[in-house]
Amino acid sequence: MEEVRVETAGGRYPVYVGDGLYEGKFVEEIRRLRPRTVALVSHPTIFAVHGERMLAALGEALGAAGSVARFLFSQGEEHKNLRTVEAGYVALLEAGINREDVLISFGGGVVGDTAGFIAATYMRGIGCIQVPTTLMAMVDSSIGGKVGVDLPGAKNAVGAFHQPLAVFSDTGVLQTLPAREMRSGMAEVAKYGFLYDEALLAEVETWSGRREPGAAGLEDIIAACAVHKARVVGEDERDVGGVRAMLNYGHTFGHALESAAGFGTLLHGEAVAVGMMMAARLSESMGLAQGGLYDVHRRLLAPLLAAMPLRVEVDAEELLVYMRSDKKRGKGERFVLLEGPQAPRLVEDVPRELVNEAVEDIVEDIRSGEPWP
Amino acid sequence: MEEVRVETAGGRYPVYVGDGLYEGKFVEEIRRLRPRTVALVSHPTIFAVHGERMLAALGEALGAAGSVARFLFSQGEEHKNLRTVEAGYVALLEAGINREDVLISFGGGVVGDTAGFIAATYMRGIGCIQVPTTLMAMVDSSIGGKVGVDLPGAKNAVGAFHQPLAVFSDTGVLQTLPAREMRSGMAEVAKYGFLYDEALLAEVETWSGRREPGAAGLEDIIAACAVHKARVVGEDERDVGGVRAMLNYGHTFGHALESAAGFGTLLHGEAVAVGMMMAARLSESMGLAQGGLYDVHRRLLAPLLAAMPLRVEVDAEELLVYMRSDKKRGKGERFVLLEGPQAPRLVEDVPRELVNEAVEDIVEDIRSGEPWP
Repeated sequence: MEEVRVETAGGRYPVYVGDGLYEGKFVEEIRRLRPRTVALVSHPTIFAVHGERMLAALGEALGAAGSVARFLFSQGEEHKNLRTVEAGYVALLEAGINREDVLISFGGGVVGDTAGFIAATYMRGIGCIQVPTTLMAMVDSSIGGKVGVDLPGAKNAVGAFHQPLAVFSDTGVLQTLPAREMRSGMAEVAKYGFLYDEALLAEVETWSGRREPGAAGLEDIIAACAVHKARVVGEDERDVGGVRAMLNYGHTFGHALESAAGFGTLLHGEAVAVGMMMAARLSESMGLAQGGLYDVHRRLLAPLLAAMPLRVEVDAEELLVYMRSDKKRGKGERFVLLEGPQAPRLVEDVPRELVNEAVEDIVEDIRSGEPWP
Repeated sequence: MEEVRVETAGGRYPVYVGDGLYEGKFVEEIRRLRPRTVALVSHPTIFAVHGERMLAALGEALGAAGSVARFLFSQGEEHKNLRTVEAGYVALLEAGINREDVLISFGGGVVGDTAGFIAATYMRGIGCIQVPTTLMAMVDSSIGGKVGVDLPGAKNAVGAFHQPLAVFSDTGVLQTLPAREMRSGMAEVAKYGFLYDEALLAEVETWSGRREPGAAGLEDIIAACAVHKARVVGEDERDVGGVRAMLNYGHTFGHALESAAGFGTLLHGEAVAVGMMMAARLSESMGLAQGGLYDVHRRLLAPLLAAMPLRVEVDAEELLVYMRSDKKRGKGERFVLLEGPQAPRLVEDVPRELVNEAVEDIVEDIRSGEPWP
């Protein structure tokens, strides 16, 4: 097991990474917090597979006097909305959850964002423990307190900063994670690699070659990502100092790609992988990075897109429309670009033609399908 | 004009109190913040009377380049809900409001709580300026960052702590406030008097004798309340240290009374006034306070209930049911009681019979109607 500390004004907490955490550290931590009732928020798929193990752990931690209220909601970005949040409030209210109780978010990024927002706003905020069950959520969204839901046409338009009390990334659950979801998470690992950490890029490449989820070494990879995330969040919790903004590498393009493709078509990591390729191309055409940056991206990331069902349907024009609507909301006016691997830079005033060109080039490359795995 | 400073971890800001603020300090402050767009949230009634003045002030502050997006919603506690919040998000999104823009809440407590929650959660939080237009909102809810909305059957069940950037209490708008609303606000002034400030009790008594809203001296009264609220919030922003909890004097009973009477039947201050009488009676029967405490409450508060339309319809049994449901949510297990004027104390484990007795006594007293004004 590894432990990474997050230190922010909004909260100081541990991130635990390891196999078999639920039966160990997790029980210990819940016992220390002594909630009367725990609200367990999850989705039916993960609950069907790992729910029994989680309930057993909670039973051991809470003893006979405690109780667990469940709120399950359907999987997928289309349920990360205010309807789900409201249903969650009502479930918590009916279970008698109050400010001294604790909410446990048990699932991937959609569950973590939605459950975290419920915790942030129910009774003006109750304690939240994040128990991510996807590689993506373990390396990124479960850490740092960004929680929220979508409005129609506007991803993460409603939300809060609500740091969890603790994060438990049990690598055991990754054994049952679909291969496509593992690849998606690895794209986010690659992001940390491109931004900060050459060794992580080597790990991604090794892992892609083997293409086996749940392999040994995952604990180290996840912990390394958590260390990067914890440092960034500690320096710029509220995303106002330009430090946390770096984590959006590939995301300006990626969010537009997700919207253009329609919710649920692309996994987040797939969109970010394509987005990073576009950002790398743009870094070259802006004259920031030397040639070859794009090729490195392509070699590392293409294997992660093996199951992406979008080979010929990406439309550059549509993507650009979504990017402009993002810009209207005050985002997307700055791009995270690279001067080279591990040399990120926030760039404003990027010429529109070069953005268009990067989008079209990569879309063309994806369409051609040629040297893709 | 008077200026009171609020200093909390979540924000440090000024509360301005005075006549004609909109044309002065308000314009100055908006100019300093330089938002591109202002989201003005209000309700049609206040907007019909004072909207033009507000828009003129904003026009002067923003100049030709700025713009004002309006979101108006119907008055009354029954609109302080998630439907209104969602409609607000959509309006802000359509107006292109982003994290650098500012929301202005322009109205009474319902507008302030709802608009404040929209500001707290839109794009993970944007700046909010509170411009209260009722005495109640000026002396209490606009200061301290408690924002939120109701769930069916659960007042303020959803919310956040979101300190405003500034508060502007322009006493000029109180000239058009209905007399019943002024009395309701004075009940909250009396609360500060009973908790902390003998001089405020004398002010309430003087004001009641005259029964004229908008009279001279209001500026001092409001500023004095703001000083108390600022101190309490500064000591215990998140309401966890038992200091801010004191401000709930009369509110445990009052909230139940509001619920039992049905939203919109009682004004908040009326319910709190009756609640304080119940708390005073309970303080006596618990042996905490000397006899006479209830009589002082009755003498001071009864004139504020002149228009309360509930003389014979308070049902003690129903009220107790609502108090128990409040308790289930982890509230109401502690009562704020008085050992005497300006000597508040948080008391746990209050015998249920004494609570019942206090409720029944006061309900009986109200029903008898005898010496009420």
